[in-house]
Amino acid sequence: PVSLLLWSRYISKAAAKAQLDYDYDGPLMKTTVPGPRSQNVGAVNFFCNYDDSRGNYLVDVDGNRMLDLYTQISSIPIGYNHPALLKLMANPNNLSTFVNRPALGILPPENFPDKITESLISVAPSGMTRVQTMACGSCSNENAFKSMFIWYRNKERGHNSPSEEDLSTCMINQAPGCPDLSILSFMGGFHGRTMGCLATTHSKIIHKLDVPSFDWPIAPFPRLQYPLEEFTRENAQEEARCLEEVEDLIVKWRQKGRPVAGIVIEPIQAEGGDNHASPDFFRKLRGIARKHGCAFHADEVQTGGGSTGKFWAHEHWGMEDPADIVSFSKKLLSGGYFYRDELQPYRIFNTWMGDPSKNLFLAEVLNVIRRENLLEEVARSGKALLDGLYDLQAQFPGLLSRARGQGTFCAVDVCDAATRDRILLQTRDKGVILGGCGESSIRFRPALIFRDYHVHLFLNIFSDVLAHNK
Amino acid sequence: PVSLLLWSRYISKAAAKAQLDYDYDGPLMKTTVPGPRSQNVGAVNFFCNYDDSRGNYLVDVDGNRMLDLYTQISSIPIGYNHPALLKLMANPNNLSTFVNRPALGILPPENFPDKITESLISVAPSGMTRVQTMACGSCSNENAFKSMFIWYRNKERGHNSPSEEDLSTCMINQAPGCPDLSILSFMGGFHGRTMGCLATTHSKIIHKLDVPSFDWPIAPFPRLQYPLEEFTRENAQEEARCLEEVEDLIVKWRQKGRPVAGIVIEPIQAEGGDNHASPDFFRKLRGIARKHGCAFHADEVQTGGGSTGKFWAHEHWGMEDPADIVSFSKKLLSGGYFYRDELQPYRIFNTWMGDPSKNLFLAEVLNVIRRENLLEEVARSGKALLDGLYDLQAQFPGLLSRARGQGTFCAVDVCDAATRDRILLQTRDKGVILGGCGESSIRFRPALIFRDYHVHLFLNIFSDVLAHNK
Repeated sequence: PVSLLLWSRYISKAAAKAQLDYDYDGPLMKTTVPGPRSQNVGAVNFFCNYDDSRGNYLVDVDGNRMLDLYTQISSIPIGYNHPALLKLMANPNNLSTFVNRPALGILPPENFPDKITESLISVAPSGMTRVQTMACGSCSNENAFKSMFIWYRNKERGHNSPSEEDLSTCMINQAPGCPDLSILSFMGGFHGRTMGCLATTHSKIIHKLDVPSFDWPIAPFPRLQYPLEEFTRENAQEEARCLEEVEDLIVKWRQKGRPVAGIVIEPIQAEGGDNHASPDFFRKLRGIARKHGCAFHADEVQTGGGSTGKFWAHEHWGMEDPADIVSFSKKLLSGGYFYRDELQPYRIFNTWMGDPSKNLFLAEVLNVIRRENLLEEVARSGKALLDGLYDLQAQFPGLLSRARGQGTFCAVDVCDAATRDRILLQTRDKGVILGGCGESSIRFRPALIFRDYHVHLFLNIFSDVLAHNK
Repeated sequence: PVSLLLWSRYISKAAAKAQLDYDYDGPLMKTTVPGPRSQNVGAVNFFCNYDDSRGNYLVDVDGNRMLDLYTQISSIPIGYNHPALLKLMANPNNLSTFVNRPALGILPPENFPDKITESLISVAPSGMTRVQTMACGSCSNENAFKSMFIWYRNKERGHNSPSEEDLSTCMINQAPGCPDLSILSFMGGFHGRTMGCLATTHSKIIHKLDVPSFDWPIAPFPRLQYPLEEFTRENAQEEARCLEEVEDLIVKWRQKGRPVAGIVIEPIQAEGGDNHASPDFFRKLRGIARKHGCAFHADEVQTGGGSTGKFWAHEHWGMEDPADIVSFSKKLLSGGYFYRDELQPYRIFNTWMGDPSKNLFLAEVLNVIRRENLLEEVARSGKALLDGLYDLQAQFPGLLSRARGQGTFCAVDVCDAATRDRILLQTRDKGVILGGCGESSIRFRPALIFRDYHVHLFLNIFSDVLAHNK
């Protein structure tokens, strides 16, 4: 049967063992998951033993060891308990950074600017030399939006001096002090769940229901056919349709008296179902933003940090000036956003404004990425993963379709949500953790240390599960 | 002269030395601040040497050692480099908690519920047995607001099943899915600077200008006369006026089609100028919320954690059922909110949902607070501080007025903003860090280990500065 053919094929490929001495050899399952020691409470999947987790493997409290292709919702950059990070903890010079969390905006630690230069600024997107640190992805986007609003209003005024009316109305939430401005977002987008972010999030009902929102424009995100290179003409048409709609919405909202101050978009819509668009789409969208005087904000909270095979997904667009703002979090271990000089966030402030202890880890993560050429590794293992998904969807056309990806940032659609959910659980019971996204997609979000060896381990297990669901 | 009299008086009082073996003896200034090694960049006050900071003393990069009564905007609970926290860092069993940050909502560490029970639940406000952890104060309030909206809509529906129209409209930011509900807040209040929070923040123009907002009702916060006990009748009248306005606004906004789902208030308005109200005011406000079916949210981000002499400022109200939601952050080292069972936040979720490494520190902070009876210490040193401020405002009636406080959570008004700012800088150059708030107030936010000894050290220096400004 087909499934056995797949088994043998992947088993032979899997012979080359991983070279990571801090990794485990493979999954090891003792119970179904959640097992007896995991109390299953609400949304909790299971309880974890983080002490014993290592490299690509997450261990649960029942001793089950699972190959992790979800990595805490894509937020573990170089695997569990990486020796470089443990070593950093052993250095007594780092102690006070953990124990004394400063109000970074007013009382930063000695040489904090240098530390930021060594870490975040060393990976600054093209055209940007400045970064604002924040504690999480939502706060990053909230404050990025505020930066765009402030920039837009100053541009409207032609100077930085607000009027008396601005000053008096802003304290009571009224225009012009609190202006009727908007952020244009895309259907299927996800930018966080605090109230400003949530007004630009349109991926799942559960996020939005019952929460008051803003009347802001929502454009269609291209619904492309995969593999992209086989449908270039159809996809270009679809992208042109969406871009036209973007321009129409900008004009319409300006006429409504609620001008679009900024456009926010993910380079790959993640939560919304791993929806891709071409570099050409993003280049044109950037052009539309410029033409209409809107700021352009690339939200790289999920795509940033290397899993697309480049440090930032927007690097695939090949632009010197890809955006006005690039926000990040997750794999960068705390949040923030890079910005072009014009968007100086002088009035962006809160108590902590990030966390230097996370920056300490990030600097080391970046060292590991460079030292071990992890972006190249991701490109290589990502190709193996996507090729494997192509094979599997050819073998199981009733189950899988629309395999797609960039680096290891891959996804595949399952025929329906119930089957997808069942497959996720069955795969987990065989020792592999995956995530869902969109209506019935599976998303793959391994750490940057996920190698060919792990790809084939995964493909073997996955093909077995698929065969059972055929 | 008066200033010399004060000097000698406080010097005699200051004879009893602090018993904290991890503290310094007193300030030690080598330069003015910021000194030559502090580059002064934008909003940065100066750069700090957190390694050498200890107990109540913050040390800067020029070696200046300052008695800290501002504590990183009120966020350092038991001083710098407390031995108990350093010891915790030395325990190898804690390593993996720092190195592997989980997605707490789905993959919590082993026994995380027990750890939360030992830490946060051990200080749960009366009537509450549940807590939702978050990464910062703003995220805590944003999600608390969402919990109140969801609770209110379910109450309106009479069941938990949204209509088809709810489901389809929420994805495009429209009512009824994104309902026209509001949160009632108070003029002078501060609840954070993300967009939902910011709609309830009304303390400073700089926070709000140019950011779109919601049409939500804003009630006057009582403007009381101090000392409170000398103006009980006048203050009661002022509070009655404000409460009447609250009810009027609730009715008006309901008529507008934008019902008030919740009321948010600080037990003491901090950022807005350390404005107090009586326990009677809060008890009546709680009653009004209940009468009109609004949730009641006490924002204890700044007041929580012990500095008022009780762990929560709302404990001074003497109620068994003080609120539906109590949010926190700062001295609790990461954010979150306690809630009554009815406000189950089933749909509250994000990637990190807090940080177990901060909870590790918090558990130890709570141990220290209990072991060293720090709440009693705060009540004692707070009384000495407020008595000293009363004396100083009697000595310098042209400079100081309206001394007020609860525990060490004290403040005093200066005659004007320019004088206030000058006094803050001069005091800093003499080795004491203070903070401003409101238009021309000085706020005192020492750590919980601030003793009588430190109070008198501060009062001596402060009276000297005041004498120079007479």
